[in-house]
Amino acid sequence: MFSPLLNQLISQFQYLPGVGSRSAQRIVLSLLANRQRGLNLARTLENAMVNIKNCRQCRMLSDAEICSICTQPNRDRSVWCVVEQPTDLLAIEQSRSFNGLYFVLMGCISPLNGIGPNDIGIDYLMSNIASHKVNEIILATNPTVEGEATSHYIVTKITKEYPDIKCTQLAYGLSIGSEIEYTDANTIKRAFDGRCLIDLN
Amino acid sequence: MFSPLLNQLISQFQYLPGVGSRSAQRIVLSLLANRQRGLNLARTLENAMVNIKNCRQCRMLSDAEICSICTQPNRDRSVWCVVEQPTDLLAIEQSRSFNGLYFVLMGCISPLNGIGPNDIGIDYLMSNIASHKVNEIILATNPTVEGEATSHYIVTKITKEYPDIKCTQLAYGLSIGSEIEYTDANTIKRAFDGRCLIDLN
Repeated sequence: MFSPLLNQLISQFQYLPGVGSRSAQRIVLSLLANRQRGLNLARTLENAMVNIKNCRQCRMLSDAEICSICTQPNRDRSVWCVVEQPTDLLAIEQSRSFNGLYFVLMGCISPLNGIGPNDIGIDYLMSNIASHKVNEIILATNPTVEGEATSHYIVTKITKEYPDIKCTQLAYGLSIGSEIEYTDANTIKRAFDGRCLIDLN
Repeated sequence: MFSPLLNQLISQFQYLPGVGSRSAQRIVLSLLANRQRGLNLARTLENAMVNIKNCRQCRMLSDAEICSICTQPNRDRSVWCVVEQPTDLLAIEQSRSFNGLYFVLMGCISPLNGIGPNDIGIDYLMSNIASHKVNEIILATNPTVEGEATSHYIVTKITKEYPDIKCTQLAYGLSIGSEIEYTDANTIKRAFDGRCLIDLN
């Protein structure tokens, strides 16, 4: 019913995650009612698609050669945290629980999807470690089968090449505010395995 | 946490209707993972913002001078249906209940929002009527205070200038599939006012 160009634009918005046909139509009509906003979005989007690269050090998305985290002077450069996605990095930063550097895999090893070690920059991580004085690497991949396999692969490789570097992983256990009654069996098992002494001081 | 360009893009997506900060972030990261799709969207969007105009006859959004509905040869050119928004036209077309031409006001008279008769192209409608053989104009504005005021204004103007043109409006009454128990009082009142004889043949 709409003109071809309009239909094309609506269907391209529909491809975006979380946008259905109805909301794509609503978005397009709202942009046509405010063309300057639409033009700005188009130009920023094109600019971002062309100019956003991966940080040369940690592979985080960045428009500079080295991202803003890697260039912060007060970061502890001897501890690195390996995460799967930029959003994982973001969640950790927002929790203010880590002050070292990151390495973003941009995925995880997943043979089913044809993603092997070379696709997530592990060679790049290894050569990066070689050129920095790293004491500890914290593996913060997701607690899924694929995430843990990725973590296992990386730890094997690091301990073989750099036996002095300490490899750690995030603790698994109960979520703060959760109820044991509703916690899944695997998490409870992990919480038992990881139990620690209560220190009353 | 993200680079400035990334933050700018995320906040521009956030302005879109129905897109919150979380989904804007998700959309941007998905486009960065598929740059070609992002570039295509940027280019189609810019193209649309620059090239989509209003049909010279009915004011519907269109990339041609005259839109695809106005150019359809099998349409009844003597009956026009006046709607507020392109989406209203779309809903009517999808219902297959009308085969005449449309006129899209692209809004309705709303003194509170500073929208007067000139902003919704009523002069344009009048001059269009003058150059066509129109028998009937169906006012299909929304059954709201503003929609009915707009309709009233247009009908007054048309009957004054073209007393031979029949002005009609869509019937108000119960929705198909609705329950009287849950129907609002105004709708029930309109349904009583508009009651009609039951024809058993």
